[in-house]
Amino acid sequence: MADARILERVRARNPLVLNITNFVVMNSTANVLIAAGASPVMAHAEEEVEEMCALASSLVINMGTLDARFVDAMLRAGRVARSRGIPVVFDPVGVGATRYRTQSARRIMEELRPTIVRGNASEIGMLSGASSEAPKGVDSTVEGEAVISPARSLSETYGSVVVISGAVDHLVQGDSYRRVHNGTPLFTKVTGMGCSATAYLGAVAAVEADPFTAALTATSAFAIAGELAAENLTLDQPGSFPPLFLDRLAQLSSDDFRSRSHIS
Amino acid sequence: MADARILERVRARNPLVLNITNFVVMNSTANVLIAAGASPVMAHAEEEVEEMCALASSLVINMGTLDARFVDAMLRAGRVARSRGIPVVFDPVGVGATRYRTQSARRIMEELRPTIVRGNASEIGMLSGASSEAPKGVDSTVEGEAVISPARSLSETYGSVVVISGAVDHLVQGDSYRRVHNGTPLFTKVTGMGCSATAYLGAVAAVEADPFTAALTATSAFAIAGELAAENLTLDQPGSFPPLFLDRLAQLSSDDFRSRSHIS
Amino acid sequence: MADARILERVRARNPLVLNITNFVVMNSTANVLIAAGASPVMAHAEEEVEEMCALASSLVINMGTLDARFVDAMLRAGRVARSRGIPVVFDPVGVGATRYRTQSARRIMEELRPTIVRGNASEIGMLSGASSEAPKGVDSTVEGEAVISPARSLSETYGSVVVISGAVDHLVQGDSYRRVHNGTPLFTKVTGMGCSATAYLGAVAAVEADPFTAALTATSAFAIAGELAAENLTLDQPGSFPPLFLDRLAQLSSDDFRSRSHIS
Repeated sequence: MADARILERVRARNPLVLNITNFVVMNSTANVLIAAGASPVMAHAEEEVEEMCALASSLVINMGTLDARFVDAMLRAGRVARSRGIPVVFDPVGVGATRYRTQSARRIMEELRPTIVRGNASEIGMLSGASSEAPKGVDSTVEGEAVISPARSLSETYGSVVVISGAVDHLVQGDSYRRVHNGTPLFTKVTGMGCSATAYLGAVAAVEADPFTAALTATSAFAIAGELAAENLTLDQPGSFPPLFLDRLAQLSSDDFRSRSHIS
Repeated sequence: MADARILERVRARNPLVLNITNFVVMNSTANVLIAAGASPVMAHAEEEVEEMCALASSLVINMGTLDARFVDAMLRAGRVARSRGIPVVFDPVGVGATRYRTQSARRIMEELRPTIVRGNASEIGMLSGASSEAPKGVDSTVEGEAVISPARSLSETYGSVVVISGAVDHLVQGDSYRRVHNGTPLFTKVTGMGCSATAYLGAVAAVEADPFTAALTATSAFAIAGELAAENLTLDQPGSFPPLFLDRLAQLSSDDFRSRSHIS
Repeated sequence: MADARILERVRARNPLVLNITNFVVMNSTANVLIAAGASPVMAHAEEEVEEMCALASSLVINMGTLDARFVDAMLRAGRVARSRGIPVVFDPVGVGATRYRTQSARRIMEELRPTIVRGNASEIGMLSGASSEAPKGVDSTVEGEAVISPARSLSETYGSVVVISGAVDHLVQGDSYRRVHNGTPLFTKVTGMGCSATAYLGAVAAVEADPFTAALTATSAFAIAGELAAENLTLDQPGSFPPLFLDRLAQLSSDDFRSRSHIS
């Protein structure tokens, strides 16, 4: 179902992706979107966020350094996105760490019913209400199959495709379930690679009408670019990884995708 | 009129450049300013922005992720800059994309009459009121000579030097007109390179009293540094480009400038 | 007193470090913390900052792009940190440049009595009240031994370990005094390396109960990583330095530390 031609479509159409995201990753996710062939815009002022969303082909909302103004901007833009039928991709960064994060994330789920939700296993567990253990920062502590059930529950309630990032990525929508086996542990040695994966989902969903296909293609392509970037690196080269990752993402060919993609 | 000795003056005087800029590029533009030999400061609180501007040798205002507080800070600092006679360099990022951006940009032009304005052709067209087509994100869609007339109109109304970035850069002030033919398409493959060019204009204008000479020298030097950085890269290496660009900007010699500068 | 085993403890315990810091360095300091083996979280909303600090092993507060909301968040989180007995590390960026910065920095000192304070010589002089000369931006203009006396005064008043960064770093706590002779001038050619040193102090103080030992170890290790990164670079390669610095920090071994550490 993952399809390399979708990656070419991103490059050909150069979709405008509106990001309401956290301060830590505004620069790095913008660069990931450009490397993928998309056109990023970062905006969050209440005076303009709805009008900006009316120009966009998808909306990415990321809760990393949330505050009341950003949550309001996410909801405003999200309503425009829903009414226009463009995809909304949501990253519930750190949900469960504080009550404010949990409340804000659940409110976003209820009001916007995002097209795609991406997080690590702890975040998806907290978001579904299946877990009550506060995650440590933004890292996942939940492992194995325990994560699939909360994802399915979330997907059934909100209709979202749920992407759980980890050593293996899990994708769930209703009864559909796929695992992506590509990637590199270097993803965990650099800040914001999860946020970048979320932004990239926004680029791909902008050009592919089926959200599960978009999510599977994006998750797989992102992981393959990471794998390629890590090929000549060791785990203790976190500084050398990001520039190479951007290069590999920009260079990623259909052949790379087809020959390397490992989905089960 | 462009003069390599001005670059040495930046390094010798190490001017303090106050930036009220967007969150995406705060880090990257600070690094560009340091590489050029300037001393960047980023500040925007209403409690201090005027006092900070009183210490600065130039002011750079960039509308990328504007909101009401940032616009207020830009106006406060801008008034101090004007009264002190230090250069104000303005980047109307995404003007025309939303009414709020257009209104804010025009208010800044009216109240501050910036020394130098830099944008792409779409932005300059929207800012002058010559174009009513909303630009796509922050990328230029206007091409060719159609851009010169709005630039001249802006320059006549506000007295600003207008710099239009693109494959060829155009500089306009009153009847003066120059084109800079240096550069690399890699500038468009990385976020915030236009914002960096604007910040760099602030560094150079801080040490050169004639704004057109400052703008021509800065635009040319920035483009040459990009050209040098791109020499051993392909267009699909957007991750490798920024570190090399900073190195080349720091290393840029008067000889590089004189032998490579292509101005018409 | 500096002890390489503390660096291994950071990697083994992976402490959660809460950062309330400036927009320029949110990404770069997060990456430094991950490279060191710590787990960074960046959060500042009044709705959650206290709850987030209750999960953390140390708190880093940095005044770089301060405004009223950030100062409030620093004080809220700082009170939680003090009541829980976790270390508070404070970077008074640009104190003395404006009255607001000076007032805010002194209020933070009074109310939080930080465990460790790190700044350049100008900042420490301004913070102690010994100097009334406004520093130029964030760079130090004070040199030599004149800086020790203000540091001692600050340490006596607030009980803090005071770290003065420069070509030689000075550490003061009460009667204790040490100098760290490692480092590289490339630290001054990149934005936010001082902020990164402060964040790194937070990671090390999270796993070492004696603040002076923590500060001496962290300052020394950070400087050695910079020295190693600079080995094959010239001073005009500011773009190539940060990726290498992160690699060297991640790779830093006890042997590197013991063989290179130059403390007097």
